[in-house]
Amino acid sequence: MMEEKHKSERIDDLLTHNLRIIQSDEVFSFSMDAVLLARFAGIPMRGKILDLCTGNGVVPLLLTTRTKAAIEGIEIQPRLADMARRSVAMNGLEDRITIREGDLRSLFEITGHGGYDAITVNPPYMPLNGSDIKLNPHQAIARHELSCTLEEVILACTRLIRTGGKVSMVHRPQRLGEIISLMRIHRLEPKRIRFVHPRVHLEANMVLIEAMRDAKPDVRLLPPLIVYEGNGRNQYTAEMQEIYFGQDSGTPTESKPDIEG
Amino acid sequence: MMEEKHKSERIDDLLTHNLRIIQSDEVFSFSMDAVLLARFAGIPMRGKILDLCTGNGVVPLLLTTRTKAAIEGIEIQPRLADMARRSVAMNGLEDRITIREGDLRSLFEITGHGGYDAITVNPPYMPLNGSDIKLNPHQAIARHELSCTLEEVILACTRLIRTGGKVSMVHRPQRLGEIISLMRIHRLEPKRIRFVHPRVHLEANMVLIEAMRDAKPDVRLLPPLIVYEGNGRNQYTAEMQEIYFGQDSGTPTESKPDIEG
Repeated sequence: MMEEKHKSERIDDLLTHNLRIIQSDEVFSFSMDAVLLARFAGIPMRGKILDLCTGNGVVPLLLTTRTKAAIEGIEIQPRLADMARRSVAMNGLEDRITIREGDLRSLFEITGHGGYDAITVNPPYMPLNGSDIKLNPHQAIARHELSCTLEEVILACTRLIRTGGKVSMVHRPQRLGEIISLMRIHRLEPKRIRFVHPRVHLEANMVLIEAMRDAKPDVRLLPPLIVYEGNGRNQYTAEMQEIYFGQDSGTPTESKPDIEG
Repeated sequence: MMEEKHKSERIDDLLTHNLRIIQSDEVFSFSMDAVLLARFAGIPMRGKILDLCTGNGVVPLLLTTRTKAAIEGIEIQPRLADMARRSVAMNGLEDRITIREGDLRSLFEITGHGGYDAITVNPPYMPLNGSDIKLNPHQAIARHELSCTLEEVILACTRLIRTGGKVSMVHRPQRLGEIISLMRIHRLEPKRIRFVHPRVHLEANMVLIEAMRDAKPDVRLLPPLIVYEGNGRNQYTAEMQEIYFGQDSGTPTESKPDIEG
């Protein structure tokens, strides 16, 4: 059952394949992180894909442009899960995307182990550390490790992904040490990593990381993804323009990530 | 006691502070990796610094331009340790650098635990994996994990570095997963990482990583270090020209790495 549109909501254009999405600054609006994750992730052309912490469903919506696989999203916040379902319906994608309201930590109890061919996740970035959270409850759950810690997210991925399946995550480079060691403790081997730098001479503020369950250690460290040109103005690089406004993500290609660099 | 010059040896210029170094293509010649490590490493102005797998002593020689600390190098191959000692003497740096011939795995039995303020290491990159080694024994020990594995190197660092001291390593990005998880298992927390890309649109082929003993997890992911311009010719970027030919590494600065980017 879907709820009525809330007055803080608006409809935004995803700028590709005429996709549209319901957003709300009070509750949840997607960021560049989700767009880059949806382009970076190694996904199969068929099979089952799962997006954890799906929010308003931005990653599943964008993934439909790259695959014919069945896509599921899971979100713990009822209001966000409802927004995501309404966005899926608005785009006529109910046969491609299923949104589940629930807790990723116990999802394996329903689906069993190893049922997914690929998983994507844009988890909350901020550890609690007793920090003072100055956000409303919706934003706090999306950004802070209130409902799941990094280790709980990674453990859920390990339980849900099949052997040889790929887990793709976007996160902050500050957490890189923890991410890599927790993944390896839980049998997810990092295979492909890309750092995102606002400009070529600045430190990275985002990391895209793809791991494979039960694989051998061997990392490919992709070219840096640079967001803005070095001319002082906020002009996107050619690659970022292609990611945001390009039309050539139209033909899904078997498991080939869009942003190899 | 120093040996005579071997006929395969030559004397090369280190291109900074009139430093010179004894090399031999048959035995050991330093690479860009060592130069970048010597510029990247966080080192104190005073105290004790140790360079593991020191080879012909290139890292200790270059570190003298950045610090007044006492520098030790340890090398397992007698012939290489001797070359390193002769290079130190040739530069008149016997009061600044001590070269020790020995096994890094048992060094703590002589020096005790935690005696060093900073450690640098450019270890052998290649795991054994039953691979066929087509090198002479000198080159094989320098490049393959014959005399020490990655974990043995990291364990030696943990034993030898003091709490809060910095360990800086150069390695191949392929091994990043193993490096980070082994460091964290052995209480070395990665704090500062920089990837080296031959060109901005190519994958990284080198990683510089600095870890601190018993620190909190928090990684700074520095700007990419790009070696060549994107013009198709092998023209160094301005930063690489500065690293190789620049004159401004003349004034040692307290613990400030040269290549922050």
